[in-house]
Formats: sequence, C-alpha cells, structure tokens
Amino acid sequence: MSASATPPTPKAVVFDAYGTLFDVHSVASLAEQLWPGRGDALSQLWRQKQLEYSWLRAMSRRYRPFLEITRDALRHAAARLALPLDPDRESRLMNQYACLSAFPENHGALRALKAAGLPLGILTNGNREMIDVSLRSAGMSGLFDHVLSSQQVETFKTLDAIYALGPAAFGVPARQILFVSSNAWDAIAARWYGYTTVWINRTGAPPEQLDTDPDHVGRTLDDVVRIAGA
Amino acid sequence: MSASATPPTPKAVVFDAYGTLFDVHSVASLAEQLWPGRGDALSQLWRQKQLEYSWLRAMSRRYRPFLEITRDALRHAAARLALPLDPDRESRLMNQYACLSAFPENHGALRALKAAGLPLGILTNGNREMIDVSLRSAGMSGLFDHVLSSQQVETFKTLDAIYALGPAAFGVPARQILFVSSNAWDAIAARWYGYTTVWINRTGAPPEQLDTDPDHVGRTLDDVVRIAGA
Repeated sequence: MSASATPPTPKAVVFDAYGTLFDVHSVASLAEQLWPGRGDALSQLWRQKQLEYSWLRAMSRRYRPFLEITRDALRHAAARLALPLDPDRESRLMNQYACLSAFPENHGALRALKAAGLPLGILTNGNREMIDVSLRSAGMSGLFDHVLSSQQVETFKTLDAIYALGPAAFGVPARQILFVSSNAWDAIAARWYGYTTVWINRTGAPPEQLDTDPDHVGRTLDDVVRIAGA
Repeated sequence: MSASATPPTPKAVVFDAYGTLFDVHSVASLAEQLWPGRGDALSQLWRQKQLEYSWLRAMSRRYRPFLEITRDALRHAAARLALPLDPDRESRLMNQYACLSAFPENHGALRALKAAGLPLGILTNGNREMIDVSLRSAGMSGLFDHVLSSQQVETFKTLDAIYALGPAAFGVPARQILFVSSNAWDAIAARWYGYTTVWINRTGAPPEQLDTDPDHVGRTLDDVVRIAGA
C-alpha cells in the first residue's frame, strides 16, 4: 500500500451498521437494568464474544447468521460472569437489536451526503432481516442505495469476500469508496482491502496497533460530510 | 462432522504452547507489580488484543511474527487503560515471555506419553525463536518430535494452513492426532479442522457457544495421559 497517496474524491460512501449508524447504547442500559452494577461488564464481554465468534467462524468457514452468533455470545458472556440468563431476559436483550436508535447527527449527515449526489450503502456483518428491522426502527429505510450483508457471502469481516461486495455493488474501485466505521479494526482492514476509510472514534479510544491507520479519523458522522467534500 | 463417532486411538499428541504448556501467570503477576490493582485488567486486555490482532492479520493476510503482535497488543492495552508504558516496563513485560515456567504436572505427563510410545509435538501461533526460548527456559527442549509454528506458514490459528502442519509433520490423518489446548476456541477450531481434541479447562470456564464441543475436556495435562490411554 502506498501510505501517503492522497485519497481520490469519493464516488460513494459505505457505512458499517452497529455502533456506526445505530447506537447500541440501549442494549447496555437494559443490561444494567437487569443486573445493576454488572451491565457494563456484560455488554462489553457480549460484544467481544460476538466479534470473536464472527472471526472464528469466518476463518474456519463455519458461517451462521449474525443474529444467532449474537445470541450465542450473550449466552457465553452471561455464563462467564455468572449472571442468570432466563429466556425472558434473553429475549428482552435480543429484542433490543430490533429497536436501536440512530445517533442524533446521522439523519442530517446522511441527507447532506445524498444531497451532494453521493450514493450511500451499508456493509455489515448483520444478516439482512436484522438490518432491515433496525433501519425501519431508526427511520432510515430508503436512504441507502445498497444494503450489503454478510449473508450474501456467508462470511464475516475482515475476509476479502465481504469487503468485495462494495466495489461490486457500486461499480467503482474500492479506493473511490469512502468506508466509514466506528470500529477501528474494521476501518483498518477495509483500508488493507483497498477502501479509503474513516474511523469514527466516538469515545476517544487510542489507535489500534496494526501498523496501518485509517485514512481519516472523525468524531461523528458530520465529519464524514466534511471528509467527503459534500 | 459426525458428532458421535468414537475418536480413534491417537497416534500422536500435539500441544498448543502458551497457557497449555507454559504458565503465563508470571506475566500477569509482573503487570500487577508494575500497576498495583490494574495488573489483572492489563493482562486480560493484552491477551485479548494479542488474539484479536492475530485473527485480523490471519483473515486479512497481514502476517507479522507473533512476538511483534504481542508487543503491539501490549502497547494498545496499556494506552486503553491509561497505564504509562515506558520502554523499561515494556521490556520487562515482554521479557517475561522468555522465562515462562511449565505447569507443575507437565513434565510428568509429557514423559508418560513419551514412555507410551506416542510422538509429541507443539503447534503454536508463537514464532520459532520465541518458542525455543520458552522451551529451554521451562526445561522442555528435547521432549518434542516436532515444533510447528505459525512462522512456517505465515498465518495464525484458526486458518486451515496452520492446523495442516500437524498431519503433514506426523504423517497421519488429523483425526488420529490428539490436539490439546487450554483455549476452548482453539480446541473447537482444531476439531472443525479434523483433529481429535482436548480442552484443558484449568479455570472451570463455561463452554464456548460455537455449536461444537471439544472431543474431551480435562483439567490438567494428567488428563491427557488418561485420554490418550498411555
């Protein structure tokens, strides 16, 4: 990779979904209601195992829909923290994924990008049904030209097969697509694949030590509007 | 996979290294000395990032030697926990990897397996230099017929390429090799690959929710002697 070449003007903008477009905070706050004082530990370990299971299944070619992986990860995380997870608590936590809200600036930023003539997409580990429900719930249906899901290729980030969906759908090289993720590892791996990438670092986290940085770092989706020159 | 077929009598036994043969507890206890009250958090996040970086690099074909990944993971973990990591502290923590001890039962168990005529091996994400130093330090050089390392294939577990080293080195099908790991994900992915596997669950952790279990679960390496019928 030529590290210093100026990225080209983007021809499309593609977003990761969970944490980037959808605020998963409501999941953590329900966990805290269910187990006061332990909600944060549960939601962190849940997220960690959800990613871990997706990576292991991608590497070992053992795809399962992301919603199942999410449930598996919840069960393991609760067991490891010795938190009793009855079917009612499990459903309530899983159902939170069906009614996530968008971050407050998202609608304005997405509309500004669309107004500038940029086609928009989503590229997510989530399965199609899961993401459609979240889009409706967040009032964002219709904003995206392409919703690209792990389900189409039956694997997960960071394998090439899933990142390849972007250039194929938009008909432009990856470098001309601005790929936006609040997960630093996703922004870095997408850059490895060939995209121009933005890491939305909402929490002021330190950079990942993977000897490659995202092309851009922002704080909110408003920074994407600026970076895209829209 | 036929889940219920009785595993064949093993023709060889292959071990994961860190946490399975070598006790990495001394790393955690040095971290606790350096940052009282935070050592546990540091060593847990360090380990988590070390695995995460190995998986991301395996998936994205960005191999770096495991020792470098270990250092990168330490730097990120310390930054995220806001623990000051000067070069002296970094060297001291990294050097712990050069003088790990073996778990107390290991020598006896390994000798019993050898006495039963079973060839022994190591199959590790560690690079060759790293593992040779650890073997000498733990007094285990000479016990193993094959030391198989990520470095030979420039990738990491759980990709097929690294698990393939076992059957190639021992000249027997994976199912006739008993693969032993204290990492449940490693024991499961090795079973997915085709090995007969033992998860050494030293800490009484709950099972991983990956819809496959290791063939066997034990508490220490003494259980491997029993399982191997040695």
